[in-house]
Amino acid sequence: MTVLEIPLRWGDMDAYGHINNVQIVRLMEEARVIAFGIPSGTGTLDATTPTPYVNLLAGVGDSVMTLISEHTVKYRRQLPYRGLPVRVDIGIDKVKGASVEIFYAFYDGDDIAVNATSTMVFVSKDSGRPVRLSEQQRAEVAKLR
Amino acid sequence: MTVLEIPLRWGDMDAYGHINNVQIVRLMEEARVIAFGIPSGTGTLDATTPTPYVNLLAGVGDSVMTLISEHTVKYRRQLPYRGLPVRVDIGIDKVKGASVEIFYAFYDGDDIAVNATSTMVFVSKDSGRPVRLSEQQRAEVAKLR
Amino acid sequence: MTVLEIPLRWGDMDAYGHINNVQIVRLMEEARVIAFGIPSGTGTLDATTPTPYVNLLAGVGDSVMTLISEHTVKYRRQLPYRGLPVRVDIGIDKVKGASVEIFYAFYDGDDIAVNATSTMVFVSKDSGRPVRLSEQQRAEVAKLR
Amino acid sequence: MTVLEIPLRWGDMDAYGHINNVQIVRLMEEARVIAFGIPSGTGTLDATTPTPYVNLLAGVGDSVMTLISEHTVKYRRQLPYRGLPVRVDIGIDKVKGASVEIFYAFYDGDDIAVNATSTMVFVSKDSGRPVRLSEQQRAEVAKLR
Repeated sequence: MTVLEIPLRWGDMDAYGHINNVQIVRLMEEARVIAFGIPSGTGTLDATTPTPYVNLLAGVGDSVMTLISEHTVKYRRQLPYRGLPVRVDIGIDKVKGASVEIFYAFYDGDDIAVNATSTMVFVSKDSGRPVRLSEQQRAEVAKLR
Repeated sequence: MTVLEIPLRWGDMDAYGHINNVQIVRLMEEARVIAFGIPSGTGTLDATTPTPYVNLLAGVGDSVMTLISEHTVKYRRQLPYRGLPVRVDIGIDKVKGASVEIFYAFYDGDDIAVNATSTMVFVSKDSGRPVRLSEQQRAEVAKLR
Repeated sequence: MTVLEIPLRWGDMDAYGHINNVQIVRLMEEARVIAFGIPSGTGTLDATTPTPYVNLLAGVGDSVMTLISEHTVKYRRQLPYRGLPVRVDIGIDKVKGASVEIFYAFYDGDDIAVNATSTMVFVSKDSGRPVRLSEQQRAEVAKLR
Repeated sequence: MTVLEIPLRWGDMDAYGHINNVQIVRLMEEARVIAFGIPSGTGTLDATTPTPYVNLLAGVGDSVMTLISEHTVKYRRQLPYRGLPVRVDIGIDKVKGASVEIFYAFYDGDDIAVNATSTMVFVSKDSGRPVRLSEQQRAEVAKLR
């Protein structure tokens, strides 16, 4: 597990004046990118791009897409906007053949506001079929344990 | 169950060129609003505002918030952007004391692209405690059966 | 000029409970797509994709990007969310060598809420240089006059 | 003028794989919030909320809204997503009776990608009329010079 501090944006609030439930899922996306790397084949990566501690995209070519096959999100309490980053704990629960199961906890102070999980899969752009995790990827995941 | 045709926006695509998984959750929000009404206490409702067939917000005052306590989303296939609305089937699975369980299916042609569920709860703005569904709300839900 | 009715989303509201100024710019994007076609090289177009009356992307290949070089937006009054589509008048002011100047008016009832303009340019993906409008594109624009 | 480093999100990219022009306007919003404070009457401010160096909302009550009356945005070059924050220079050009004129420059390395301006106005929630800047607000702006 790793602990992130992700900046909220004022625009993450909705008409109820709290962080919108959809934007929580946007922040889950951002937490994955910060913790595990930029989805393969996207962005303009160069020498300045930081390498995440757990680089789940290590050695994954541009012909492979990093997709989501499942989310579960439990909203335990409203997450207020205080002009501060949100603490997000993120880790990996399970590694399967071609996917990983990710968990998240969002905090407001000492209270958990949201618990969530995602399944991330690696898929060939050409065939649309799952691509098994490499040894290199498995070695990266092992850093988290 | 009711069948909606919800316009996609070009901006719902991400860097992979398909509808982004987070935007699916945004579209779930929009499907709820179209099918069940505008969350209590938000928007500028007047005589021109359409009343949904199943008006889950019927008789719910502005002191009650309409919140989400849980989502599950299963992405079965990528949802492409074709410049057309997306078909979303939406219905209610269960009614509990202070919440309803909603289900969704998103289609691309005849194929289901996404299955999802949400739990919607009614909560007092002042006390933060759940508010039980009224008889009027239960009567509205009964229309769906 | 053509008149569009673009569905608003509940999520277009911000913490002030009205349509957010940034979402107006999102709706300008959507108005362009509806009125003038899907930006070249994006989306999954097929026989079901509607052809806009003024097809500014007619004959434009996937090697050309449709970019924005300038926006001006004047917010004249707050745009409320009433659960209804917003009326957007959109047209083309000027055609230059490699760009077109677009104007918009957003209405709330009979009142103009927003006036805006955009400059849309056609740019080669490879060279990054502007690409002149073709005769076919000029013929399409002429439909608007 | 002050210099900000604002985190981009992966989701700020569009189907062209660069930062979307609408998201630039979202980032202008975020730059204003960081540089000049949280729009009056929104968010859940407490002792942990940081006070910006130039606190344009100092002494502004919850009965006053902080609105945008105008944006101009010039996109000079595409802004790529490199997994790094974007540098945004932001300052105030002019102070008028009830409004301030803000300017921005977005950088990609040493190159300016975007130049923009916004007019921010203070408006009474009840009457909808402009509210003049206080001495306290003018003193805050003076810090920038």
